[in-house]
Amino acid sequence: MFSEFIKKIKDYNHIGVFSHVRPDGDCIGAQVAISLWLQKNDFQVTAFNEDEIPLNMQWLMKAVDIETPTEEKLAECDLFVMVDGNALHRFGEISEWLEDKSLPIFMIDHHPNPSDEFDITISVDDASSTCELIYGLYEEHSLSQLDEASAKALYTGIITDTGSLQFESVTPRTVAIVSDLLARGDFRPNEVIEVIYSNKTLPQMKLLSMALDTIQLFEDNQIAVMSVTKEMLEETGTSNADCEGFVKYPLSVANIKAAILVKDFHDDGIRISLRSRSNVDVNVWAKELGGGGHKKAAGAWHEGPREKAIEEIVKIGAKQLKDIETTTVL
Amino acid sequence: MFSEFIKKIKDYNHIGVFSHVRPDGDCIGAQVAISLWLQKNDFQVTAFNEDEIPLNMQWLMKAVDIETPTEEKLAECDLFVMVDGNALHRFGEISEWLEDKSLPIFMIDHHPNPSDEFDITISVDDASSTCELIYGLYEEHSLSQLDEASAKALYTGIITDTGSLQFESVTPRTVAIVSDLLARGDFRPNEVIEVIYSNKTLPQMKLLSMALDTIQLFEDNQIAVMSVTKEMLEETGTSNADCEGFVKYPLSVANIKAAILVKDFHDDGIRISLRSRSNVDVNVWAKELGGGGHKKAAGAWHEGPREKAIEEIVKIGAKQLKDIETTTVL
Repeated sequence: MFSEFIKKIKDYNHIGVFSHVRPDGDCIGAQVAISLWLQKNDFQVTAFNEDEIPLNMQWLMKAVDIETPTEEKLAECDLFVMVDGNALHRFGEISEWLEDKSLPIFMIDHHPNPSDEFDITISVDDASSTCELIYGLYEEHSLSQLDEASAKALYTGIITDTGSLQFESVTPRTVAIVSDLLARGDFRPNEVIEVIYSNKTLPQMKLLSMALDTIQLFEDNQIAVMSVTKEMLEETGTSNADCEGFVKYPLSVANIKAAILVKDFHDDGIRISLRSRSNVDVNVWAKELGGGGHKKAAGAWHEGPREKAIEEIVKIGAKQLKDIETTTVL
Repeated sequence: MFSEFIKKIKDYNHIGVFSHVRPDGDCIGAQVAISLWLQKNDFQVTAFNEDEIPLNMQWLMKAVDIETPTEEKLAECDLFVMVDGNALHRFGEISEWLEDKSLPIFMIDHHPNPSDEFDITISVDDASSTCELIYGLYEEHSLSQLDEASAKALYTGIITDTGSLQFESVTPRTVAIVSDLLARGDFRPNEVIEVIYSNKTLPQMKLLSMALDTIQLFEDNQIAVMSVTKEMLEETGTSNADCEGFVKYPLSVANIKAAILVKDFHDDGIRISLRSRSNVDVNVWAKELGGGGHKKAAGAWHEGPREKAIEEIVKIGAKQLKDIETTTVL
């Protein structure tokens, strides 16, 4: 998969490596691990990101410093490698500068539907993470170059993009890679886990507390609904980003078939996230509300008010629960 | 490790397999997986547990029924195999019956300090789980016998005993085993994860909501304290067991060095759980309160009242934070 990449990259000297804006564990992990690989193979490397690196990922910058791009620093590079983004605009304002300069750009990513803006495109949308792909680069070239810092960086990306190896995207290969990373990096999971998941603020805890208190069950406890309101965000000084992952709480209620997160704080309506834990197809459900998605995860908008939205959503779900003979997953 | 076990078990016909009382994922997973192995190798098998199997584990009984022991059923067995308990009393009232009959008993377990009550003792206290050990049995005898049901059972035990492969007990081998289980069982993690972690009740959600609301930070945000009170348990109709895992919430606050869970609902005092996410040694800390444990996790009791307990605990922690130069893990 990386043979062309490994061959062609030899034509360049100073590589600028970009991770996407609003960075997460996978893009930072991939950026650090490929930068270390480039350094070990005698390239000059500068790692860039337009945004701040989240607090819980900053330890990764001990291995590779990630800098804010400036025209001066960018001008030193003769090739750019973009990781974990499927189009140039995912990397921020730099995209325009890059387009103007028409410098060569390679990309490595696992998001579907990559744009055709890149000179080399390594895009595998059924990979769990971009870090899983970067492991493949080491594997094709020289696993012996995978040291503790690169192992921990790749581990960080795989873990954060797979909900700690719990998502459907996790294959036997993903897990075998993690086993090898623990061995080569000579570390135990908790050493990294405690740092990457320890990024919660007190306002986020208060918001979660309030949201948990709203969970309601409907239709003989088959549907769980959690709500987050504008008042909650205002009282706690939080925003939409602080609700990330909240839907897992109603989804963890025993015996439910589907869970719904109702976000009643957007200016243009109520945002509905639907998750299924049965053969209830939430894509069908979301479509009745003018939205869509997948069987297990879908979304829609409702004009409100919240009580009416919940009533209507539950009514549609109740119909589905009756129409099909539902079974839980196992 | 299993050579004597595999050789000696051939002398018997009908094996009674026990998992420990108050069963969890690891003992049930191990029990189901070894019962399937015994069945495949033409033994008669009856699986026993004195307690109810938790709702989120009941799907495992599709492969192997787990029965309440009766004298009649027990009398059919000529050998007992006890999994995931280091002493006979861990398996309930049956222990007395077994002692009286002096029937042969084998054990497989990963808890430290096994008793000497067993005829064969397979005890590995640095294994992540008993399920990891049962995988070793298949491995030594016949990995080809590891089918979907046994793979999912072993996966359940390893995952639930390691906090989804996040604990210090997880080695490269543990993770390699999980990779093999996913391959042999031909399943993706979410299929099992969604079921085993979907066991929460609405009262547990309310209790968590209340507990999150109590989180306080001390000593320049280096110590996070969460409290659970008798009033909270009473208002939600919950008990001590419903606080399991709560300490991970104060422990996930950014930049803290240690987290404390204060359980103010026991009749005989306030129970304090201490966790470290730095080089703060909570064992030293707990000892000053007359308790103890390990560097990263320890416990103690305080006579109360709660405000005084928190004040004293924080004071001891503050002294430690000053005495040693603290660093976070990475």
